[in-house]
Amino acid sequence: MSFFPASFEELIDRFAALPGIGRKSAQRLAFHVLGMPEGEAEAFAQAILTARQLVHTCPICQNLTDGEICSICADSKRDRSVVCVVAEPRDVASLERSREFNGVYHVLHGVLSPMSHVGPDDIRITELVKRVSEGEIQEVIMATNPDTEGDATAMYVSRLLKPFGVRVTRLAYGIPVGSNLEFTDDATLVRALEGRRDM
Amino acid sequence: MSFFPASFEELIDRFAALPGIGRKSAQRLAFHVLGMPEGEAEAFAQAILTARQLVHTCPICQNLTDGEICSICADSKRDRSVVCVVAEPRDVASLERSREFNGVYHVLHGVLSPMSHVGPDDIRITELVKRVSEGEIQEVIMATNPDTEGDATAMYVSRLLKPFGVRVTRLAYGIPVGSNLEFTDDATLVRALEGRRDM
Repeated sequence: MSFFPASFEELIDRFAALPGIGRKSAQRLAFHVLGMPEGEAEAFAQAILTARQLVHTCPICQNLTDGEICSICADSKRDRSVVCVVAEPRDVASLERSREFNGVYHVLHGVLSPMSHVGPDDIRITELVKRVSEGEIQEVIMATNPDTEGDATAMYVSRLLKPFGVRVTRLAYGIPVGSNLEFTDDATLVRALEGRRDM
Repeated sequence: MSFFPASFEELIDRFAALPGIGRKSAQRLAFHVLGMPEGEAEAFAQAILTARQLVHTCPICQNLTDGEICSICADSKRDRSVVCVVAEPRDVASLERSREFNGVYHVLHGVLSPMSHVGPDDIRITELVKRVSEGEIQEVIMATNPDTEGDATAMYVSRLLKPFGVRVTRLAYGIPVGSNLEFTDDATLVRALEGRRDM
């Protein structure tokens, strides 16, 4: 049974359908929307519609864009011979924040996951193979997460790309900067040992 | 610096402006909206607009409604001689859930709080005094929260209403059902002792 007006319950339901938002939080957000200054709620609704209308994937790297191609692919100063392959658009944002990488990207929009029925045709692998087959790319850096699915995806993609004579590398995984041995988990320590380098 | 398309950043900003939603959560919600099935995002945006347009306060009890008056005030089976005064619309929902109260409500939309510059004119006290002055009400149950501001508000309202010859009561506060003495805080124990009854 509902104790709020129907249109208000509807708004609560919509918020509650978002990931990580429980019933109580949804109620709080709905109350907040009701109390917003004039125009702000309209702007919020409009932002949802505009983002849905304008944002699509870049035909080259599959990253999100609201232009014809994304700003990174459009940037003539980026090195088109190195492609960094990531699982999600947010990973591009993380790497860009480091200001270290000057190549271009390829966003897979997922990782291979037999448990969740995600196979090679469900993520943007074909588009990557096509890009590599065109010949300009010399190195592909696999930057999927260092977990079972990310590793498996990196391995799978690497085998697909090797026949094109391209160099395929994987990001280094080890102890994060600022952390210490005591609080580093076993799996990370194993990676750190495997990846040790001469000083 | 932003690494997402402008219209997508705008949507993230809108989510991040909601209470209790940080930057990372906002990003996650925005990605979720992009991935929503066709029509669902539009329905979400529409729910925001509709709730803002339709929901207003009931002219009698000040509770939220999208009708002319709220469903409780419109219900002829409710006892109009008993009014339960609460701070927020969500408190009405809590009390209704208990199915114990058959009177009507008055929603103050806040409590007196000198620290936050909320005075008697900032919450709906005048409307309550007017209702009581009309003579039909025999008992006013103060159901504001048992904290400093809720207590002060109850005390203030009670003094305003007493001259009208109406009975003013306060909800009982004590040890919650299902709890035990060991985990009950001191303030609650004090209330429980003060409110003790003959067996």
